Amino acid sequence: MKKRIVLALGGNALQKNGEATAEAQKKIANEVGEVIADIASQYEIIVAHGNGPQVGNILIHEESASTEKAPAMPLETAVAMSQGQIGYWLTQAINNAFIKKNQTKKVVTIISQVVVDRKDPAFQNPTKPIGQFYNEKQAKLLAKQNKWTVKEDAGRGWRRVVASPKPIDIIEKKSILELVANDIIVIAAGGGGIPVYRTKILKHLKGIDAVIDKDYAAEKLAELTKADIFVSVTAVPNVFINFGLKNEEALHKISTKEISGLIKYGYFKSGSMLPKVEAAIMFAKKGGTGIITDIDHLKDALLGKAGTIISKNISK
Amino acid sequence: MKKRIVLALGGNALQKNGEATAEAQKKIANEVGEVIADIASQYEIIVAHGNGPQVGNILIHEESASTEKAPAMPLETAVAMSQGQIGYWLTQAINNAFIKKNQTKKVVTIISQVVVDRKDPAFQNPTKPIGQFYNEKQAKLLAKQNKWTVKEDAGRGWRRVVASPKPIDIIEKKSILELVANDIIVIAAGGGGIPVYRTKILKHLKGIDAVIDKDYAAEKLAELTKADIFVSVTAVPNVFINFGLKNEEALHKISTKEISGLIKYGYFKSGSMLPKVEAAIMFAKKGGTGIITDIDHLKDALLGKAGTIISKNISK
Repeated sequence: MKKRIVLALGGNALQKNGEATAEAQKKIANEVGEVIADIASQYEIIVAHGNGPQVGNILIHEESASTEKAPAMPLETAVAMSQGQIGYWLTQAINNAFIKKNQTKKVVTIISQVVVDRKDPAFQNPTKPIGQFYNEKQAKLLAKQNKWTVKEDAGRGWRRVVASPKPIDIIEKKSILELVANDIIVIAAGGGGIPVYRTKILKHLKGIDAVIDKDYAAEKLAELTKADIFVSVTAVPNVFINFGLKNEEALHKISTKEISGLIKYGYFKSGSMLPKVEAAIMFAKKGGTGIITDIDHLKDALLGKAGTIISKNISK
Repeated sequence: MKKRIVLALGGNALQKNGEATAEAQKKIANEVGEVIADIASQYEIIVAHGNGPQVGNILIHEESASTEKAPAMPLETAVAMSQGQIGYWLTQAINNAFIKKNQTKKVVTIISQVVVDRKDPAFQNPTKPIGQFYNEKQAKLLAKQNKWTVKEDAGRGWRRVVASPKPIDIIEKKSILELVANDIIVIAAGGGGIPVYRTKILKHLKGIDAVIDKDYAAEKLAELTKADIFVSVTAVPNVFINFGLKNEEALHKISTKEISGLIKYGYFKSGSMLPKVEAAIMFAKKGGTGIITDIDHLKDALLGKAGTIISKNISK
């Protein structure tokens, strides 16, 4: 039986050249598509992806050109829009990589709602800056009008900040499982998923403006779909300690216990490598393999020959 | 065995009150969701939908707030964004209607690419106005910069016009079939689908700025998924001839031959009732049942007790 893998692609990956046109992002999606098509005969594949720069630009457009007739969409709907956008690019890129190989394997994007807890402490302390910069006066006015929280962002101006709650469940999991079990590549939980919570009395699903970390959401996806391997695909081939310093060291095979120890020493930056390491540890603790690497080393990392590979017990 | 139905929801349906906020559109989506949940135990359901006003607003935002750092997305990608947006609202609405009924039936949105022919004559004569209005000078400048075709729109200003080619195939049909056969409600081919064509030599899929009529796309979806019934859900309970006049007449059960005759007499407006009637005829000619009705009469129409019902042979 094929091993099932969940890939979490970085949201910045499609804009690595700093170009945000659809054309430039599709070009990079094509490179990713080729790599995925290359490993597709060996694995059942689910792809999650970030959406930071893309949903940021959607919000900038929506908010700065909002009128009564064409009102701005809220963040939760903007996430859905970015899932359509990026999902389409990735789907087509993988489609074309298979056409090139003369293969008919299928790939599909699922619009995904990810459940969070309305009582998640993150909602008491929103930290994730999104959308455009404002001056203090504008920011405070918008905060009042829209019930936003706004904060000064490192001397660059004022921005809206939203909560980053933990993912609990994925509403579309049954469909995702159905498809991947039929050897169809599934793109899901884009941008960490559309954040929804269950209302208190009726238990209805309701969207909420928040940003779910894409590595945590992808890890939840890996867990719910009973994947064997979770890979956070990022910009570097390995997790490093003392990155960029003289004594920098790449991590290869490492146990959950050992790398958890390194977290305590403060080796990994929050909002950067830390959530990837945490997601990989979370998955490995449940018995799977957690990998952190870049797209160029993905194939070798899956064979145990590259990347940072985290599991409960390591034989070195 | 349950009958399989494809519903084509009008794109204006979610903005019937003229309100374009996410909140207002979700409210109407909830009403649609209740009706769909009501019939869901009797049928296998695929939902297609229009996106006219929604993709229009996305384009207005994208284009009027486009910058080098946050460039506007092209129409084909904007269609993908609108599929995410509307698909999310409909999915959640149907989810909540099932929660209300204490049922666990699933629903999912598939980002859908619809293949068109690059040689479709529609590309020689673009007729579909999209996006915002410009003055003549702006319009002609944009046309030159972006290789757009622009036209004067009924005295209201200048607008971009794009082709409306015929749908040939749906790339995601296998996934859609897999899901609907497992009794999962599928939302697909939103906004007529993301228009793509196959490149001449490599046969790659490539997005193209165009608008595929949502009724034609939904009919193609019904055909490819071997549906029994195709329903164009619109604003009126029946197709009428001489609508609004003294001698107005509602059509009930009618044969493809009979209603085709009425087309020749010019009874149905192009861009309005004509594509719905044509799509229903196309589907009925292949042996299925084509229905045109509104959401309030959907349930009865499916039982043969309301709406305009088109089939090859009618016993009156």
